[in-house]
Amino acid sequence: MGAIEDRINSLGYSVPDAATPVANYVTTVHVKSAGLVFTSGHVPRNADGSFWAGKLGVDISVDEAYKAAQNCVLGILGSLKNELGDLDRVTRVVKLLCLVNSAPDFTDHPLVANGASDLLVEIFGDKGKHARSAVGLSALPGNVCIEVEMVVEVS
Amino acid sequence: MGAIEDRINSLGYSVPDAATPVANYVTTVHVKSAGLVFTSGHVPRNADGSFWAGKLGVDISVDEAYKAAQNCVLGILGSLKNELGDLDRVTRVVKLLCLVNSAPDFTDHPLVANGASDLLVEIFGDKGKHARSAVGLSALPGNVCIEVEMVVEVS
Amino acid sequence: MGAIEDRINSLGYSVPDAATPVANYVTTVHVKSAGLVFTSGHVPRNADGSFWAGKLGVDISVDEAYKAAQNCVLGILGSLKNELGDLDRVTRVVKLLCLVNSAPDFTDHPLVANGASDLLVEIFGDKGKHARSAVGLSALPGNVCIEVEMVVEVS
Repeated sequence: MGAIEDRINSLGYSVPDAATPVANYVTTVHVKSAGLVFTSGHVPRNADGSFWAGKLGVDISVDEAYKAAQNCVLGILGSLKNELGDLDRVTRVVKLLCLVNSAPDFTDHPLVANGASDLLVEIFGDKGKHARSAVGLSALPGNVCIEVEMVVEVS
Repeated sequence: MGAIEDRINSLGYSVPDAATPVANYVTTVHVKSAGLVFTSGHVPRNADGSFWAGKLGVDISVDEAYKAAQNCVLGILGSLKNELGDLDRVTRVVKLLCLVNSAPDFTDHPLVANGASDLLVEIFGDKGKHARSAVGLSALPGNVCIEVEMVVEVS
Repeated sequence: MGAIEDRINSLGYSVPDAATPVANYVTTVHVKSAGLVFTSGHVPRNADGSFWAGKLGVDISVDEAYKAAQNCVLGILGSLKNELGDLDRVTRVVKLLCLVNSAPDFTDHPLVANGASDLLVEIFGDKGKHARSAVGLSALPGNVCIEVEMVVEVS
């Protein structure tokens, strides 16, 4: 196990198995010519595997959606481990797109997205500091409260 | 005509002429240093050139929007042919962002996005397997039912 | 001062200081292996520093949001200057994602996004011609009327 996965475990988290897409797409594509991996949008799951649902401003709190954003990041790391063999090959987290399921009058998307950003910096340190957009979607698949996609630089 | 365009035709589809942006942008940008082409969001058109409109959960079915997603992909391939000269230069479909015009209670975005994903894999085989996000937008230009943007790796 | 910043000033605009993210992310990430810089979503600000708020189709006009889109681009250029030292290092504007705060029945997102696109071409000429998506979000942070993220190629 690499240093990054050790670190994740020491923080009290664990890297899940890679998600299995249910359609004609994959969770990660490694573009070797660019040294980048692009990931699919990952959605949060409850412990029983069901979708972690909710719409901000309607029926889920910022605190709960913050944890769902962490859950998305761990799912992405599971997919990246599957792609790369070892998370230590991630040399920089480049870009996050945090897509938050939102009522029209919700405006605290950054507080939700911080669940993803804080965890990445906790795990990767300065290499985890990324560019980010956080916005409000009218609806998401399965009514999940957030969907996160990521671009990383790899060695 | 290259092997990929032959394949598209044998499947009963055809590659349209490249779209002409009506403003200060272009349909594709080829970043040679990265071996990537980034495309603009492409919207679906009816046979008469009008926008293929509709909001999922309100006035268009998943089955119809699935076909509109195929239409977006064909439009993107038209733009890529214009950029590259030959679609055989696409070595991998890297990333799709499927932006679905959605009522707040619509949750089947993946079923719509499959119209894009299924066609790409039908055309490109394993090279067509991409990372993907599919999400619900409150509104899209001209009330189109879907907008799709793509990143591809090229030789 | 480089030629591009001279040009910006001669057009009557100025490059602001880089934005300071209020959380665990950064405004730009330079991926040297790919020759690309990815930026965070930038939001428009009034002269007093407050968010430039409004939802298209509800309480802000296309003309005003066009100016807010310009404001986002200038903010991005401030962040890129901070990253690169000199905006002359931008060899191509690659991709814009224009995320417009929209009522469900608003359909003129491209007219808003043109505020960003027109200014980039005015400043950079042909190097400013980019791929673009412009879509309608149900809600944005702080109720800003638009959020723009950009990918640029650099030397």
